[in-house]
Amino acid sequence: MNFNNRLIDDAVNEISKLPGIGKRSALRVVLYLLRQPQVQTQLLSQSLSDLREKVMYCQVCFNISDHAVCNLCSSTKRDSTVICVVESIEDVMAIENTAQFRGLYHVLGGVISPVLGIVINDLTIAQLISRVSDSNVKELIFAMSTTVEADSTAYYIYKKLLNHNIEISTLARGIPLGDDLEYTDELTLGRSIIARIPFEKSIKVN
Amino acid sequence: MNFNNRLIDDAVNEISKLPGIGKRSALRVVLYLLRQPQVQTQLLSQSLSDLREKVMYCQVCFNISDHAVCNLCSSTKRDSTVICVVESIEDVMAIENTAQFRGLYHVLGGVISPVLGIVINDLTIAQLISRVSDSNVKELIFAMSTTVEADSTAYYIYKKLLNHNIEISTLARGIPLGDDLEYTDELTLGRSIIARIPFEKSIKVN
Repeated sequence: MNFNNRLIDDAVNEISKLPGIGKRSALRVVLYLLRQPQVQTQLLSQSLSDLREKVMYCQVCFNISDHAVCNLCSSTKRDSTVICVVESIEDVMAIENTAQFRGLYHVLGGVISPVLGIVINDLTIAQLISRVSDSNVKELIFAMSTTVEADSTAYYIYKKLLNHNIEISTLARGIPLGDDLEYTDELTLGRSIIARIPFEKSIKVN
Repeated sequence: MNFNNRLIDDAVNEISKLPGIGKRSALRVVLYLLRQPQVQTQLLSQSLSDLREKVMYCQVCFNISDHAVCNLCSSTKRDSTVICVVESIEDVMAIENTAQFRGLYHVLGGVISPVLGIVINDLTIAQLISRVSDSNVKELIFAMSTTVEADSTAYYIYKKLLNHNIEISTLARGIPLGDDLEYTDELTLGRSIIARIPFEKSIKVN
């Protein structure tokens, strides 16, 4: 499909750069917008530029925020002695949705990756170290992907914090809830046997 | 997933109004844009508002256009004696892509539909009639959906043009090329038997 129309081609090109949207879907979006009242496109365009221009990140935890310090960090209902270290703001959302964590977060902004060219200074590791040093933090929980890069990043932070008197833990790893044993990958299954837990612990809810 | 952030919520809401994009995909788009350089969001936002504000429709055929008269209508290589009547600009694209038609188009902007509240004056039927009256048009081809509403719209135009000395045709209807006979719906198959064509015609390419 080709329109030979600059406005449409431009819009299709920009829209199809978005994840999960190909040229065809982008064209569908464009033709849809042309059929809708102009105000809908104005709102969409405005919300996108506002999003990118006005977005702020919390100075403490680097989560996305409306203010200099985010709602979570400024809340008196959260336990400020526990910090959950995550890679991205999506992870904060995911953990918040479980409603199982009442502490604070620290968003690293990624993991150390020589392949992608992400070095230590690209992440908020220094801020995490000084945050732990300056406040009354008692526990750090690594809630990161189970990749080599994430493991190395966590290990780097762990080494940096060895002389601090805090507990450092990581998310439990094992067979996902609801999974069939026969379909669990060998690596996970193998590790789950080695890292088996007392049965009483597995039936504990909180 | 809920961010409790106005900027993100606004953007997610607006993006998820687009066809084929739900709340989850919209959030994915938003988080993707936040990770990309700001200029990408600027280009996207700009192309969308440009699209809707600056888009023009050809004064002759009502196809989308960069100028007052579109490239097709102003082209000297097209046969201006044949007009293909279509419902929407998507249909122009679809027919252009076949490279089988060298005439001009007329975009109706929909079909008469009492259910959707689309009446004759919402469409460009009057403009089509005067276009046929004023120029040297010899043939009109209806290239419309095979729905009751499209059939009625075509019939209305046909009646209006009865006293004009032009040929009026419609797209061939029958079994789609490459289809298995056993999977063809009964209505199409039945009509194809009634409207059977001389074998020589079916092997003719042009």
